[in-house]
Amino acid sequence: MSTSASSAASNVARNSKGRILHAEKLLELTDGVVDLPPLQALAGQSILNPRQFERRSVVALAQLAAVLELRNVEIEKPLDGKIAITAFFEASTRTRLSFESAVLRLDGKVLSVPDGQVTGIAKGESLADIGEMFNTYGDVVVMRHPDTSCLDEIRTNLQRPLINAGNGSGHHPTQALIDWFALLKWRPELCLPDCPPEKRIHLGIIGTPGSMRAVKSFLRLALMFTGAVSKITIISEMADPVGLDLTEPIEESPIPIEVINDVQDALPELDVIYVNSIAFLGDSYRNLDDRYTLQRNSNLKPGAVILHPLARNMELSVDLDDTDHNLYFAQAAGAVFVRQAILIAVLDRLDRIGDLAKSR
Amino acid sequence: MSTSASSAASNVARNSKGRILHAEKLLELTDGVVDLPPLQALAGQSILNPRQFERRSVVALAQLAAVLELRNVEIEKPLDGKIAITAFFEASTRTRLSFESAVLRLDGKVLSVPDGQVTGIAKGESLADIGEMFNTYGDVVVMRHPDTSCLDEIRTNLQRPLINAGNGSGHHPTQALIDWFALLKWRPELCLPDCPPEKRIHLGIIGTPGSMRAVKSFLRLALMFTGAVSKITIISEMADPVGLDLTEPIEESPIPIEVINDVQDALPELDVIYVNSIAFLGDSYRNLDDRYTLQRNSNLKPGAVILHPLARNMELSVDLDDTDHNLYFAQAAGAVFVRQAILIAVLDRLDRIGDLAKSR
Amino acid sequence: MSTSASSAASNVARNSKGRILHAEKLLELTDGVVDLPPLQALAGQSILNPRQFERRSVVALAQLAAVLELRNVEIEKPLDGKIAITAFFEASTRTRLSFESAVLRLDGKVLSVPDGQVTGIAKGESLADIGEMFNTYGDVVVMRHPDTSCLDEIRTNLQRPLINAGNGSGHHPTQALIDWFALLKWRPELCLPDCPPEKRIHLGIIGTPGSMRAVKSFLRLALMFTGAVSKITIISEMADPVGLDLTEPIEESPIPIEVINDVQDALPELDVIYVNSIAFLGDSYRNLDDRYTLQRNSNLKPGAVILHPLARNMELSVDLDDTDHNLYFAQAAGAVFVRQAILIAVLDRLDRIGDLAKSR
Repeated sequence: MSTSASSAASNVARNSKGRILHAEKLLELTDGVVDLPPLQALAGQSILNPRQFERRSVVALAQLAAVLELRNVEIEKPLDGKIAITAFFEASTRTRLSFESAVLRLDGKVLSVPDGQVTGIAKGESLADIGEMFNTYGDVVVMRHPDTSCLDEIRTNLQRPLINAGNGSGHHPTQALIDWFALLKWRPELCLPDCPPEKRIHLGIIGTPGSMRAVKSFLRLALMFTGAVSKITIISEMADPVGLDLTEPIEESPIPIEVINDVQDALPELDVIYVNSIAFLGDSYRNLDDRYTLQRNSNLKPGAVILHPLARNMELSVDLDDTDHNLYFAQAAGAVFVRQAILIAVLDRLDRIGDLAKSR
Repeated sequence: MSTSASSAASNVARNSKGRILHAEKLLELTDGVVDLPPLQALAGQSILNPRQFERRSVVALAQLAAVLELRNVEIEKPLDGKIAITAFFEASTRTRLSFESAVLRLDGKVLSVPDGQVTGIAKGESLADIGEMFNTYGDVVVMRHPDTSCLDEIRTNLQRPLINAGNGSGHHPTQALIDWFALLKWRPELCLPDCPPEKRIHLGIIGTPGSMRAVKSFLRLALMFTGAVSKITIISEMADPVGLDLTEPIEESPIPIEVINDVQDALPELDVIYVNSIAFLGDSYRNLDDRYTLQRNSNLKPGAVILHPLARNMELSVDLDDTDHNLYFAQAAGAVFVRQAILIAVLDRLDRIGDLAKSR
Repeated sequence: MSTSASSAASNVARNSKGRILHAEKLLELTDGVVDLPPLQALAGQSILNPRQFERRSVVALAQLAAVLELRNVEIEKPLDGKIAITAFFEASTRTRLSFESAVLRLDGKVLSVPDGQVTGIAKGESLADIGEMFNTYGDVVVMRHPDTSCLDEIRTNLQRPLINAGNGSGHHPTQALIDWFALLKWRPELCLPDCPPEKRIHLGIIGTPGSMRAVKSFLRLALMFTGAVSKITIISEMADPVGLDLTEPIEESPIPIEVINDVQDALPELDVIYVNSIAFLGDSYRNLDDRYTLQRNSNLKPGAVILHPLARNMELSVDLDDTDHNLYFAQAAGAVFVRQAILIAVLDRLDRIGDLAKSR
C-alpha cells in the first residue's frame, strides 16, 4: 500500500477537537492487507440491517475505510459513471450530505431528493412505484424514511441495491459501521477474535435501543464482538429498553448485559459510552431526558471515550469537546470514508482501489 | 451501429414488471439508421409545444432514444461541459429526477431548483428576471410551472433553449414523446407513413385533454400518426373535453375521433388505453373520478396495452402490474433515454454519438 | 493571454438587454497581466467582510474574473476534485445558483443545502457542530444565514475556508465584488489610483447601508476607491442610514459623503446609482419605499448607469431594461465569473489558469 503523507494530507479531514484517530494503526494489525472476501460478497447487495454482517465483515469494511482515509483514491475515480439516488423522506442533512460527499469524492454522481415528503413524490405515490422509477434513474438508492416498513415496500419493484439510511424505529446500519470504525481505529485490538483482556471494553449505552435506531444498530454490532466487549450496560429510563428485534441476539450472546436506570452508578466503570439524543416513538421524535446529560464534570473513568452519532441536543455538553473523552468528533470525521467503503463494495468497484490484498 | 449485449447490459434499466420492450425492434425498421435532419433542426431550439413536431421528428427522436438505450454512449460524455438548469416551480420529483438522471448519465451537470415556489425565487421576482439570470448560469433550462403563460414570460429575456416540463394546463411535450417512444418500441410499424391495417391501433384516452396537459400533448402527437391510428376514443365525464388548443387540429385530422362518457362501453375495442390521474383545474389539481379505474378484471381486449405517465392514484390498479397490459412500466423506463435524446439534439451534441447515420 | 473569439463565444453569457460590457477593456489597462500577489494571499482564507480587501485586491479579483469571462478555462478543470458546500439557511436561489454554477463550470462539485432552516439541520443543531461536520464533507463552505453572528459561530469548529454569502444585516462581500467588477469593466480608469478627473464618478446609493448588507458592502468597497469616486450621496429615509460598522471608515475617508432624503434632488447629478430593494430589519425583510422608484422617465443624467444586486421589486422599473442606464443586467451577468475568481484564489488553484502574469 503506497500511502504517502502528502497524498493523505489532501484527503484526511481531521476533527477540530477531541481525540485524533489514526487509520494507520488499524491497518498495522494486518500489515496493510484488507480482508477482501466479505467485501466482495457485498457486490449488488442491499444494506438493510446490521444482522446481515458479522464481526469479520465489520472489520473488513473498517479496513477499507481506513485505506480510503489514508490514500488519495480520488484519482482512480472509483465510482465513475455511477449514480446514487439519495431519497430522504425524512429530513437529515447530516446523513444525506455525508453520503453525497462520499459519492462525489469518488467521482460518482448524485440525484438528490432532500425532502421526499414535501416535493412531488408526495402526490400520494406508493413506495413500490417510486422503487420502479428509481430502477431507471440510478445505480444505488440511499433511503431514509419514517416508516419502519419502508424497506419491503420500496423493494416490491426496486431492483437496484438499497442502502438503509434509517427506517423509522428500525435500523441505521451504516451509522453503526461508522461507530465501530471509530472504536476500531481507537483500539485496533478490538478487531481480534480474542482481544487481550486488558484491552477489552466495558460498553455503556445511554438510551433505548428498542426505539432508537442508531443505538439499536450499534448494539447489534457490539454483540458480534464477543472477544472484545467484556460487558454491556444499557442505561435507560425504560424497564425493557431493548425491543423485540434484539431480544434473541442478546439472549444468545455470551457478553454479560445489564440494564440499569441511573447513569451516575455506571459512569465510573465504563470504557466506552454511547449516547444518542433522539428516540423515535410512534411517528414523532423525543429527546433524551436531562438526567442523562454527560458533561465535563460527570464522573467519567479516566481514558473513557464517548460516542454520539450526532446531531446532539442537551444530552452531550459542549464542555466535553475539548477533552480526550471526545471521540464523537473523530467518529463523525470517519463517516464519509465508511460510506465510501460501503458504496464501493455494493457497486462492485473494489478493483478500482489497487493493492488492497497486498501486504506492505 | 456496434451494439453489444454486454455494453447494453450496463445501460438498460429494464422495468421490473409488465411488458419488456426491445429498442432493437424499433431500429430494425431502418437497419439501424437514425433520421438525422429533424434532430439537427432542434439544435438551439426550445421544446415548448408538441405542435412544433411532426411524425418524422417524433420517430427520429425515438430512434435516437433507442440508440441511447442500446449503446453505452456514456463513455463519449455527450453533454460534457454543459449545465442544465432544472427549475421546478411546481413540485415533481419524477420528472425532475428523470431529466437530471439524463443529464448526469451523459456527463452534463445539473443546477437544481427543486422547489422554486418555496426557495428564494419566491421573493416576488418575475419570470422575466429569472430568465435573465439563467442566461449566465446554464446552457439549457428545463422548467415546470403552474402558470400556462410561464413560457412567454421567462422567454422575455431568456436566450438559452427552454424545455417545457409542464406549464399549467398547457402542454408536457417531452412526456408525450416518451409515451410515443413506448408505443413505437411496442409496435414499430406505427412509425410507417402507411402502417399495415392489421397493425393500426384504436386508441382510447381516459381523461380530459383540455385540462390535463400530459393527455393533451399525447393526443396532439397522436393526431400526427394518421397512417397508424385508425380511431381515437376520448372517454371523459366532460361534454367537451378537448379544449381550445386542439379543436382545430382535431377538426383537420383524418383520424375519426369520438367522445364518450362511459369507459365500460369502449374498453373491449381499444388496442391502446392512455390514462392519467391528474387534471389541472384553475390553479389546483383534482384526481380522476373512480368510475374510470382500470383493473385486472376490467373488460380489456386481449393484447391491449395501457399507458400512464405516472404517478398514479386509484385510476390504475396495481393488480394490472403483473399483466401484459402493463406497458406503463416500460414506458417509464424509457423516459431517461427520450430526455437524453432531446438534450443531445437541443445542445447540438449529435456529433458525440458516432455512426448514427450509418446502416448496420 | 490567448483569447480567441471562438472560445470566448462558448463561455460568455451576455445579458439580453441594457449595456453590454467588455472584459477586454478592463485587461487592456495592464496589457493582459493579472496582479497575482493579492490573489495568492487569499489561498486558504475565508471571505467574510469587505474590509479584508483593499483597492488593489478588488482590482486583481476583477482582472481574474475578466480572464475567466474571456478565456475558455473550463478545459483546464480548475476546481477538479474540490467540493463546495452551499449552505443556505436563508433561501436565495439567485446567489446559491450563481455559486453552484461557478463551481460546476470549473469542474468542481457541489453539496447543496438549499434550505437549511427546513431540512435536517433544523433538529436544533448548533452552527458550531455544523461547522465540525462540514470539515469532513467539503473543501470550502459558502453560507448564507439570517443571523449576523453566524460567521463566528460556525467558525468555532470549521477549519475550511468560509465564504460569507450574506449574514443577516452584516455583509455580502462577494456581491460587492460583483458590483465593482461591473463598474470596472464599464469604466476601467476607475482601477487607477489616480483616475482622470473627467472619469471620476459621483456615486448615489439609494437605501440604508446600516440595515441592507449588499448596500453596506458595496459602500465599504467604494470607500477604497479614493482616486476614482469624487462624491458619494446616500439617499435614505433614515436620518442616520449608515450604521455602526461603517461610521469610522466613512469618517476616515477623503471622499465627500452626504446623506439626503429626496431622491429627486440628487438624480440629475449622479453618474452611478446603486439601488437595492431589501432591507433586513430585526429578523425580517422590508421593501424600499415606493418614493425611491427609478423608472425610464426619472430625471437621470445622460450616460448615468444603474446598479442593482437583484432580485428587484418595485424600486426599479422594467421600463429601464431596454435603456443604456441598465448596467444591472451586465452586472448580474458577471456574477459567476467573480465567484469563480474567488473560489480559484481561496482554493489555491491559480496555477490551473495559465499565463496570468504574462503580458500579451
